[in-house]
Amino acid sequence: MSAGGVTDTLLAEGLARIAEEIDDTFDALLPVPGDARAKLVEAMRYAAIGGGKRLRPLLLTCVADMYGVQREAAVRAGVAIEAIHVYSLIHDDLPCMDNDAMRHGKPTLHLAYDEATAVLAGDSLHAFAFEVLGDPATSADPFTRIELVQALGQASGAQGMAGGQMMDLVAETSEFDLQTVTRLQQLKTGALLGAAVEMGAILGRVAPEGRTHLRGYARDIGLAFQITDDLIDHEGDAEVAGKAVGKDARAGKQTFVSLLGAERAREQARMLVEQAVEHLAQHGREADLLRAVARYIVERDH
Amino acid sequence: MSAGGVTDTLLAEGLARIAEEIDDTFDALLPVPGDARAKLVEAMRYAAIGGGKRLRPLLLTCVADMYGVQREAAVRAGVAIEAIHVYSLIHDDLPCMDNDAMRHGKPTLHLAYDEATAVLAGDSLHAFAFEVLGDPATSADPFTRIELVQALGQASGAQGMAGGQMMDLVAETSEFDLQTVTRLQQLKTGALLGAAVEMGAILGRVAPEGRTHLRGYARDIGLAFQITDDLIDHEGDAEVAGKAVGKDARAGKQTFVSLLGAERAREQARMLVEQAVEHLAQHGREADLLRAVARYIVERDH
Repeated sequence: MSAGGVTDTLLAEGLARIAEEIDDTFDALLPVPGDARAKLVEAMRYAAIGGGKRLRPLLLTCVADMYGVQREAAVRAGVAIEAIHVYSLIHDDLPCMDNDAMRHGKPTLHLAYDEATAVLAGDSLHAFAFEVLGDPATSADPFTRIELVQALGQASGAQGMAGGQMMDLVAETSEFDLQTVTRLQQLKTGALLGAAVEMGAILGRVAPEGRTHLRGYARDIGLAFQITDDLIDHEGDAEVAGKAVGKDARAGKQTFVSLLGAERAREQARMLVEQAVEHLAQHGREADLLRAVARYIVERDH
Repeated sequence: MSAGGVTDTLLAEGLARIAEEIDDTFDALLPVPGDARAKLVEAMRYAAIGGGKRLRPLLLTCVADMYGVQREAAVRAGVAIEAIHVYSLIHDDLPCMDNDAMRHGKPTLHLAYDEATAVLAGDSLHAFAFEVLGDPATSADPFTRIELVQALGQASGAQGMAGGQMMDLVAETSEFDLQTVTRLQQLKTGALLGAAVEMGAILGRVAPEGRTHLRGYARDIGLAFQITDDLIDHEGDAEVAGKAVGKDARAGKQTFVSLLGAERAREQARMLVEQAVEHLAQHGREADLLRAVARYIVERDH
């Protein structure tokens, strides 16, 4: 078997494993109550279980594994960050935002249920993320738990993901340059991908000064991820992507593809991945999965 | 001066003081960035600053004061719980939820800005609450901070406030009995009022077994608060209330007033307040403000 084949197997196994773990943990932590709140929890489960690449939990658990963190703790933190990601997709898909009809190959939550339930299910998953991180089952050490809360709070609020989503709304009526689009994407997608890596390092009790190379890795794959998303939106297949494509051009938004052209954008993404992998030079085989994830990020078609 | 006069002065001063502290702290913690996110933070400030009774921060700081907590720490925790309350109002006012046009005597956020900004500003205030609690400035002790996070996460998610809001949506098309309406309100309003008292006790390092009487107080005023809200909606003045009234009857919702009648509902609220005050019997003058707050809750007209 070639080196590529070994890496492919490692990645395929890593993706399958985390997908199962995240589904199982959401399932265990979101029991449906026997009263009028049942619809809310069913809606949370509809959006949270059985879809998505689970990229953020994968990154988090990869880093945690490198530092010998107990797998169950890392998966719980992975569920927390995935809950934030899922809530942001639910709200992003709303009619007043992107007005999307399809997500992970099935109807978006506000169509499967209704808008009010979608707003509340997003809000509930948001609170759920911090409930999970606050629980001693995630880490017996309160300092570790509060560090996780800080990292996730900062990455998801106005200074992170939500700030990036706001810039994205403004982008529809503004002519952003490459620098502003880069900043937008670093906030909108990069902040949470960075938090995934950071949270793995927090669980591994890596001191902040020992996280520099991991932050460099996260920054590079974050940008590469978004460039690839732009390419998928530009030339992808809606059925393969599991969501609508061609949206950016219709919305008149500047993207890496519109600013650089598809060819240079693709080159840029590849270069960023190589740079990301270089950040891991101090690690041996234990970082192979992180390296494979970096390559997967630009090679995926959905 | 009569005892009533002294209590009135205490309450008036307490309300004025917390209102100023919460406004000042929101103002300091929400600086407007110099990029495309400015609109998001301006929207957060529009909703968060200069409105509302600040009842949750008042309760939190009252309890914290009783146990000698440094005022600044208690006010920061008060800002966190108020941020959750404000985000829930923003989302509750959306067209797909209650579709309200007026809040605290001014246009609701989605009318002053737009729906997408309102969704994101709510989400950002939600994350902001946990950022504030995670910050060492709220408490140097990580265990205290993570206890605050747990209390607020539980009270605001599907098992608390958001769960109550879901039941409230279902109430429009169901015939709820008194027991179910009580449960709904304990979740929708009671959970967060309870968290306010709980968070004050956490900051005061009161052991869980020493909080029983405070929980009893919170449970009673929570229910009294909601009965009074129903009475204001039933017979109040929109101008005084600062929001639309008569909504429950139009929506066909069962409330304490529709189930008990206005007279018995008012009696019930008064009885609950007396019961709440009895829970504070072990405290001396230091609990006078909490006693005044309990009475204020049923005597207010907005």
